[in-house]
Amino acid sequence: MPAPTRRQLANAIRFLAADAVQAANSGHPGMPMGMADIAEVLWNDYLSHNPNNPKWFNRDRFVLSNGHGSMLQYALLHLTGYDLPLEELKNFRQLHSRTPGHPESHLTPGIETTTGPLGQGFANAVGFALAEKLLAQRYNRPEYSVVDHRTWVFMGDGCMMEGISHEAASLAGTLGLGKLVAFWDDNKISIDGETEGWFTDDTPARFAAYGWHTIGPIDGHDPDRIKAAIEEALAITDRPTLIACKTTIGFGSPNKAGKESSHGSALGKEEVEATRKALDWPYPAFEIPQEIYDGWRAGGAGSLRQAEWEQLFDKYARQLPAQATELIRRSHHELPEDFVQAADAYVARLQAESPEIASRKASQQTIETFAALLPELLGGSADLAPSNLTLWKNAKTAVGDDPGANYVHYGVREFGMSAIVNGVAQHGGFIPFDATFLTFSDYARNAVRMSALMRSHAIHVYTHDSIGLGEDGPTHQPVEHLASLRLIPGNDVWRPCDAVETAACWKAAVTRTDGPSCLVFSRQNLKPQPRDKAGIDGIYRGGYVLAEAEGGTAKVILIATGSEVGIASQAREKLQAAGIPTRLVSMPSTDVFDRQDLGYRESVLPPSIRARVAVEAASTDFWFKYVGLDGTVVGMTTFGESAPAEQLFPYFGFTADHVVEAAQSVIRG
Amino acid sequence: MPAPTRRQLANAIRFLAADAVQAANSGHPGMPMGMADIAEVLWNDYLSHNPNNPKWFNRDRFVLSNGHGSMLQYALLHLTGYDLPLEELKNFRQLHSRTPGHPESHLTPGIETTTGPLGQGFANAVGFALAEKLLAQRYNRPEYSVVDHRTWVFMGDGCMMEGISHEAASLAGTLGLGKLVAFWDDNKISIDGETEGWFTDDTPARFAAYGWHTIGPIDGHDPDRIKAAIEEALAITDRPTLIACKTTIGFGSPNKAGKESSHGSALGKEEVEATRKALDWPYPAFEIPQEIYDGWRAGGAGSLRQAEWEQLFDKYARQLPAQATELIRRSHHELPEDFVQAADAYVARLQAESPEIASRKASQQTIETFAALLPELLGGSADLAPSNLTLWKNAKTAVGDDPGANYVHYGVREFGMSAIVNGVAQHGGFIPFDATFLTFSDYARNAVRMSALMRSHAIHVYTHDSIGLGEDGPTHQPVEHLASLRLIPGNDVWRPCDAVETAACWKAAVTRTDGPSCLVFSRQNLKPQPRDKAGIDGIYRGGYVLAEAEGGTAKVILIATGSEVGIASQAREKLQAAGIPTRLVSMPSTDVFDRQDLGYRESVLPPSIRARVAVEAASTDFWFKYVGLDGTVVGMTTFGESAPAEQLFPYFGFTADHVVEAAQSVIRG
Repeated sequence: MPAPTRRQLANAIRFLAADAVQAANSGHPGMPMGMADIAEVLWNDYLSHNPNNPKWFNRDRFVLSNGHGSMLQYALLHLTGYDLPLEELKNFRQLHSRTPGHPESHLTPGIETTTGPLGQGFANAVGFALAEKLLAQRYNRPEYSVVDHRTWVFMGDGCMMEGISHEAASLAGTLGLGKLVAFWDDNKISIDGETEGWFTDDTPARFAAYGWHTIGPIDGHDPDRIKAAIEEALAITDRPTLIACKTTIGFGSPNKAGKESSHGSALGKEEVEATRKALDWPYPAFEIPQEIYDGWRAGGAGSLRQAEWEQLFDKYARQLPAQATELIRRSHHELPEDFVQAADAYVARLQAESPEIASRKASQQTIETFAALLPELLGGSADLAPSNLTLWKNAKTAVGDDPGANYVHYGVREFGMSAIVNGVAQHGGFIPFDATFLTFSDYARNAVRMSALMRSHAIHVYTHDSIGLGEDGPTHQPVEHLASLRLIPGNDVWRPCDAVETAACWKAAVTRTDGPSCLVFSRQNLKPQPRDKAGIDGIYRGGYVLAEAEGGTAKVILIATGSEVGIASQAREKLQAAGIPTRLVSMPSTDVFDRQDLGYRESVLPPSIRARVAVEAASTDFWFKYVGLDGTVVGMTTFGESAPAEQLFPYFGFTADHVVEAAQSVIRG
Repeated sequence: MPAPTRRQLANAIRFLAADAVQAANSGHPGMPMGMADIAEVLWNDYLSHNPNNPKWFNRDRFVLSNGHGSMLQYALLHLTGYDLPLEELKNFRQLHSRTPGHPESHLTPGIETTTGPLGQGFANAVGFALAEKLLAQRYNRPEYSVVDHRTWVFMGDGCMMEGISHEAASLAGTLGLGKLVAFWDDNKISIDGETEGWFTDDTPARFAAYGWHTIGPIDGHDPDRIKAAIEEALAITDRPTLIACKTTIGFGSPNKAGKESSHGSALGKEEVEATRKALDWPYPAFEIPQEIYDGWRAGGAGSLRQAEWEQLFDKYARQLPAQATELIRRSHHELPEDFVQAADAYVARLQAESPEIASRKASQQTIETFAALLPELLGGSADLAPSNLTLWKNAKTAVGDDPGANYVHYGVREFGMSAIVNGVAQHGGFIPFDATFLTFSDYARNAVRMSALMRSHAIHVYTHDSIGLGEDGPTHQPVEHLASLRLIPGNDVWRPCDAVETAACWKAAVTRTDGPSCLVFSRQNLKPQPRDKAGIDGIYRGGYVLAEAEGGTAKVILIATGSEVGIASQAREKLQAAGIPTRLVSMPSTDVFDRQDLGYRESVLPPSIRARVAVEAASTDFWFKYVGLDGTVVGMTTFGESAPAEQLFPYFGFTADHVVEAAQSVIRG
């Protein structure tokens, strides 16, 4: 074949997608066929990447927010030379392939972030662009743009309809993320059919209202027009750019193009063949002519690009060795050498000082301490900084170009915030945390799930963790949230009982690099608990014996978390005084405790002791896992009430006396 | 005092708010002080309501989306003559007062919807306006506008930043909800301070992009300008209207007006006194001069207004008795007389026919049947109608003015959808349901919580309920969602095992008028289960013995839900064949089962039988509540995988053989 045309290059995507979906008899051919021409121009002419090293730090980031079009991305990775052989494309959507139904970043080289839940990829992309901006303003020097890459994101009508697109686009506009370019696949088709009955926004006008530069609508099948739009976007450096692209879903399919029927299922064998004829593509399924591969291969250019960057970086490192070392350390996701030691010393000091403060306050003091050690800490809150206590002395806002910027005022945008934080974590160079009230973790819930699925090093801070928030009432009082967050696979939830556990859980969250942590703090003051070195070590095992039974083997075990540890401790004293040997277990993280070996777990909760009482101002249901049918739970079974916290605890039964009664009932039972 | 000025009337709100917050030493004075002038004009000159009958069906609906300003609404209700005496205002935020921290609709007369979680009140308001529009186009006749009222909503910067404001505003624009008027409290202050660092949208331009009419910014302290804006809004009938109001938070406070310090805590005694002087308000706390009350009282006018409407309605009823009867029935939230009988007959017929179909398909057939009986059923899905199977033959879209409209294409807007559905349910006249994939219940989660807190008769349909959805992979496969939804207090979650349980759970959801139900359905086909009349009755008790142990007392109990009932049933047969008497319990709703009396619960799960195995393709943790430490759970402890469902069930251990092994292990144990 002669040198392929742009359309032929794009058609390679179309047929890899249509054939793989056909082979799996499952998937979404319409979007890859519709966006193939845009992807071809972007990847062949603009994307700065290196297929030979998908982790090259200064690569452009490409995000497929409409992740159901995963075959588009797999085709691009395969064609440009990433380690994604044809065999993987043939195994699209099969067990343990690297080509799952939606792109998963921990499985497939070149996938920057896991997408599929609509709108979140776009917010991740805002996080990527934010991370780039902040690293650039910290590390770059006039002659050394060592951090200098773009974030490109594809998004569909679904992403646009989702509320998170508003939150992320609004903040991106305010932050002026000039290296972010979004391509909107304006094909006027969603699963219910033609969108005119449910989606009539003037989307470019909406984005202009956020302060974005907008281009189009352009013909998303005209390479020249696409090129011109990208050139225009590159010239805009103070604002993000939206390129509205009119496309035809299922482009090329004689009977299904422009229709919902091409969106979410295989075209059918006959229709794929008809499409082959219509697009003049004579090659069998999964056969790509060498000339087409030649037109796509990006490995050589990528390695050259990386080599040039490394040359620049070497010069930079000679001039600014400390900065270079720090940037490399951060890009490798390594903690400062002295961090663990310093954190341990801080925890030990707190144990010695034993302040009686709210865990949110203890959290703020820990942030203060850790931020001095961790230039990579990027804080933020969804407009609750004075309540979450997430600001510290040297926190500097990310608005503007302060090289020390390390704090994002996310505004009242919980879902956008957490998805942006996921993007920042996926980008690398930062350990980001976000914050809101525990109740409003609901708003961000699927982003927390995505943190866990992606194994992102994201930290979610949740304060005002129970009825202890008091007068704001049941709309603001979490009940089911602790258990709900614990149920997310791979998510570590911590609810510390005092300042020491608070600092320890922060250390655990900072050092846990392969998954997210949720740190849950009280509004109200918490009494310090006594513990020796073994007690402190126990914190990192998720649950431990905080106070051993005295005067014999424990007749009952009290298990508590957070603010209820203090109540359980008083109850234990009363039980001991009544001659009942009582063990008190503090369980700041059930997730971490469950990962301990059986021997340890049984040393804390011996199978022989069935008289157990769990105490937590949250849903009771979760705790039967630890107390079984012979134990009981002092917890919440209803919503809270609006009243001062001091009244709510006794009202809902969180008193030492009630815990004592509960203990007696299970001992008798 | 002479006849009070508008400012003096508004100041009554300001001081009731400032003094009540001061008395509670907790709350938000800034917003009521800032929006008092707008509220005064709206309530005194435009709001069509009847304080003597807060439930008058044709009243205007007023929604305080920025619900932290609850004292604004309590002051308005008190001043205009609702049953909310001064004593309640003095008890602001105290236990069991009718003036909780945020407005709660089930506690306080005149509160239409529970607000506080930002943005949701606005979406509720869209639901109110949608309900009004649909009822009006069904029941009104040229001379009889028997349904004719407006929805007014106050919203703050926080509501505007939330993504749900995008979803709800976008759909309201598409639907052309001309009787919806939103007042945006543009005070440029949020909790983190001046909003310019995190909120720089051109909000009117954004709303114009949704097809809204926009007015302003206007001076929100100038009654004439407010009046003119409302007049302009009234003249616009084909689109919703946004009125952007520039206001000063904490208006009148000499030292805190315009500052964050007036937002979320008491002004302080001195500052309240300084405000008294500044606003020339000589009256002590909680003393309102009679002249001020006289200027506010709306009971007489309200009763007259209602009486006039009743006259009109009587005429209407004489001309159109069937329509009038139906509208009254619907407005009283009563089901058609024959519904229960017809539903029971349908369930019995299904048991006789025993089709082997997916529960989502059985759900669609049930909707088809029930919709013919229930003109109040209002369906919808977040752009997944062909997957959720929520469309039926006589479904008619709510876009346009079809009097039979009973279906909303919500677009890809899960959170907005569920909050709109809450608004529709709170409005009355409808039993609304929404739908999405179970995984994306996450996006709507706090709206589901609000359904439960408000005790809304909302039905949330969730399909694709497990790894059984197959190739779409872990982003789309729910794991923790079933347990998470069950944990929400007052929320009834149903996961039926076959077509009969599906129809029964729909009946339960339709007849449960005091709270929401989540109906969770499979993508894949489910085998019909045999049951007699007692078995069918058992469904409505949440859990029941589907198959009794044979050959002696049960040695083990298998408890299963949904698609795993079939697997557990096979396992039971194998166990029985091996001589082990095995009871099979189907547990379609743990929430409903937990409400049964102890005697019934113990008849299903006798305390003497501790060998129990729960089987559910979802988080294991939840089930220890029923199986204890002596039982075990066959469930999910990780995310799913992308692969055909037939491979995933055995891969994750959901086979009869594995359940048999689990049973044997607990019998031995």
